[in-house]
Amino acid sequence: MTTSPDSVVREFIAEHRAAFLDDLSDWLRIRSVSADPTLAAEVRRSAEWLTGALRATGFPVAEVWETPGGGLPAVFAEWPSGDPAAPTVLVYGHHDVQPAARADGWATDPFEPTVVDGRLYARGAADDKGQVFFHTLGVRAHLAATGRSAPAVNLKLLVEGEEESGSPHFGALIRERAERLAADVVIISDTGMWSERTPTVCTGMRGLVDCQIDLFGPSQDIHSGSFGGAVPNPATEAARLVAALHTEDRRVAIPGFYDGVVELTARERELFAELPFDERQWLSVAKSRATLGEAGFSTLERTWARPTAEVNGIWGGYTGPGGKTIVPAEAHLKLSFRLVAGQEVAKIREAVAGWVADRLPEGIGHEIVFPGATRPCLTPLDHPALQSLVRAMGQAFGEEIRFTREGGSGPAADLQDVLDAPVLFLGISVPSDGWHSIDEKVELDLLAKGVETAAYLWADLADHWGAPGHPLDQA
Amino acid sequence: MTTSPDSVVREFIAEHRAAFLDDLSDWLRIRSVSADPTLAAEVRRSAEWLTGALRATGFPVAEVWETPGGGLPAVFAEWPSGDPAAPTVLVYGHHDVQPAARADGWATDPFEPTVVDGRLYARGAADDKGQVFFHTLGVRAHLAATGRSAPAVNLKLLVEGEEESGSPHFGALIRERAERLAADVVIISDTGMWSERTPTVCTGMRGLVDCQIDLFGPSQDIHSGSFGGAVPNPATEAARLVAALHTEDRRVAIPGFYDGVVELTARERELFAELPFDERQWLSVAKSRATLGEAGFSTLERTWARPTAEVNGIWGGYTGPGGKTIVPAEAHLKLSFRLVAGQEVAKIREAVAGWVADRLPEGIGHEIVFPGATRPCLTPLDHPALQSLVRAMGQAFGEEIRFTREGGSGPAADLQDVLDAPVLFLGISVPSDGWHSIDEKVELDLLAKGVETAAYLWADLADHWGAPGHPLDQA
Repeated sequence: MTTSPDSVVREFIAEHRAAFLDDLSDWLRIRSVSADPTLAAEVRRSAEWLTGALRATGFPVAEVWETPGGGLPAVFAEWPSGDPAAPTVLVYGHHDVQPAARADGWATDPFEPTVVDGRLYARGAADDKGQVFFHTLGVRAHLAATGRSAPAVNLKLLVEGEEESGSPHFGALIRERAERLAADVVIISDTGMWSERTPTVCTGMRGLVDCQIDLFGPSQDIHSGSFGGAVPNPATEAARLVAALHTEDRRVAIPGFYDGVVELTARERELFAELPFDERQWLSVAKSRATLGEAGFSTLERTWARPTAEVNGIWGGYTGPGGKTIVPAEAHLKLSFRLVAGQEVAKIREAVAGWVADRLPEGIGHEIVFPGATRPCLTPLDHPALQSLVRAMGQAFGEEIRFTREGGSGPAADLQDVLDAPVLFLGISVPSDGWHSIDEKVELDLLAKGVETAAYLWADLADHWGAPGHPLDQA
Repeated sequence: MTTSPDSVVREFIAEHRAAFLDDLSDWLRIRSVSADPTLAAEVRRSAEWLTGALRATGFPVAEVWETPGGGLPAVFAEWPSGDPAAPTVLVYGHHDVQPAARADGWATDPFEPTVVDGRLYARGAADDKGQVFFHTLGVRAHLAATGRSAPAVNLKLLVEGEEESGSPHFGALIRERAERLAADVVIISDTGMWSERTPTVCTGMRGLVDCQIDLFGPSQDIHSGSFGGAVPNPATEAARLVAALHTEDRRVAIPGFYDGVVELTARERELFAELPFDERQWLSVAKSRATLGEAGFSTLERTWARPTAEVNGIWGGYTGPGGKTIVPAEAHLKLSFRLVAGQEVAKIREAVAGWVADRLPEGIGHEIVFPGATRPCLTPLDHPALQSLVRAMGQAFGEEIRFTREGGSGPAADLQDVLDAPVLFLGISVPSDGWHSIDEKVELDLLAKGVETAAYLWADLADHWGAPGHPLDQA
């Protein structure tokens, strides 16, 4: 195999850039808003349009996949390498978009792509059609530069149609189709970088365990004058649970919560600290007035690499106007826990449930339900596939690639679990791209860097792919 | 002056009992439900009926009083003693009743008084027409027994028409009419005793300070994956406030909260402990499964004589079905504090507000509003007016009178404050009387004891009333 010479890749991209943008614009004109039932036909049209575009790219297989449960369709495409030793890569993205209307305050029609000052404005330009689409030109540039007729890896694409609606059928879909989706590495192209000037690779996402805790005191609301101060109050006990969630230094106080946590290495902390973090700007995005979190960690470490406990909702007793002197019959909590690598969903649930049961006084009944969970995922900095990605990006950007993580939780972990494959994140979007907001755009220069990264990546991955027993197999 | 011989009083009551019950039944037939706007005319008819009955009793003054603000009318009556040294007593009760309908499950028509097994069943039989009305026969028995043509005290009656609707105009009414209501002692006849077998006098009510605390975090709900664990969460802070309200031994932890508290005397604790308290029965009334409260105090002490802090409502964030991974923008608390004698409303408010402000971390804004307050009232066991009441009751019941307090807060404190007079509680109702419930009744034997107590009380009060400088004046 051979690495791709930069000049050929760049020339190829420059040559095909206009047609690529025309095609992307055609796709962006399709109103594939998954949240709007009246636009279901548009989501389907978007899936069909994409299968056509992937076939035109050269994918021998490109199919519309119906989702189990009658949801909106996904697209699957496959391009075998032909080399029996080639690794298999699955690229994930989505073709549905957030709702958008000119009347929301857009400067241009959100479904009429418009280029202004090197930026392509349209709903879906960055989230996620633009980032899915750079793989089409990317694989063609890869073939041009390597002289191959098929990619150096077995390339698969899965492009979901319900991501903006919470991926209700995604788990079922990938479980049902696990055999065809089988891959050695998953690449998520639905994320971003630190900024235009600081290209980065995301190395992991946090997991999530959420729960609802219902506390029961008196069998009905009772008079706080007659009984208050002499019987347990479920609202008080709910609050005491929440307050006991954290120590004074804001560590999670549930026994066993930190068991197994993969701690940040000194090198990762150093790399995070080197990122040009502006706390004032971060606070403005967080719409908050101050930072507060686990003692001994920076804001980036707290949101990216530390597990947390958060109250998402609390309610109990009288919440209307004026006062009502009662001891309420019930109180309720919605809590969620972000997990990092090394924490196990089942153990966290057990720890939370036991902790709740231990802390409640006699006379307070309770129920606890854990509706869902997402496992954390993390690719170590020295993982060979991650190193391939960093080299490909470095080659495209011509500068050092830094590392980030993602504080949220997403389908990446589902793919990781079902396919038993490490997950990498290749995204070129930047915070100013306006995801889910008005005037969404993609920087055309960065889009081209995405194409270029994809063009270098498959050859690098194939080159550095080892025989069985390679470090990749122990990931 | 002369004490009233028991035999004359009892004979007089026996002689007039049938007519007294006939009259009371006439009054009970009037549907004076203050909560039902369509029955406003009935509340007025009740007020007019009562003025007629009070004139027939002998009160030279008996008037319907309109309430400021266009509420339902009260009744005022006055019967001067003629003795310039006589103390002035104001009796308080109410003539409006709770809603009631046969269809709610009453065994008899709630507005057709029915005697079964020595009990008079009707809405208002105990709460409060029966207990107002025993004063009419009581004062006549007093005159018969003492041979007087006017009571030994200047006797005033104020009978409210909106008590069951939360007394919305009562404060304004008594302030407006304070001069005519002026009294040395207030007697509330709208309460009960421990039980049929344990006659008691209530010696005080707790006060009340309530507040709403609004906490503000991010300017809108934010993503808990992106920002959770790194910014303050107002729901967490609301919960931490609530949890910090109490120490581990469930004392109120707000600095200064207990300042000035009039502690229970050893004698009071002994007397409370002698009451036949059945915790299982109390829990069944409290609809609770266990007791919990300030360490070192019994359930009766906690509800009657100790100040408390209670959460009446808490809410913030997402409370719908499923989960929503947010850091909520706001959280809210409704707290109420029961006060005992010695605690001052203004100081408690200041202590609470300061404590809240001190405990919130940077980045959490807050507002605190104190909508209302009721002062506590307490009459010491050795108060001469209380001793008169206890003697009169003891004479009527022929046994030792014990002491209780009331955990709730009520108009008693308003009267105490506006008239600057100590408040006594003369009630003969028992817990089984079904206040606000179906099958409300009054025990006819106890009603007769109420008449008898009233018959003895005025002479005793006048006999033990001192010149200026008497302990009563320092109350």
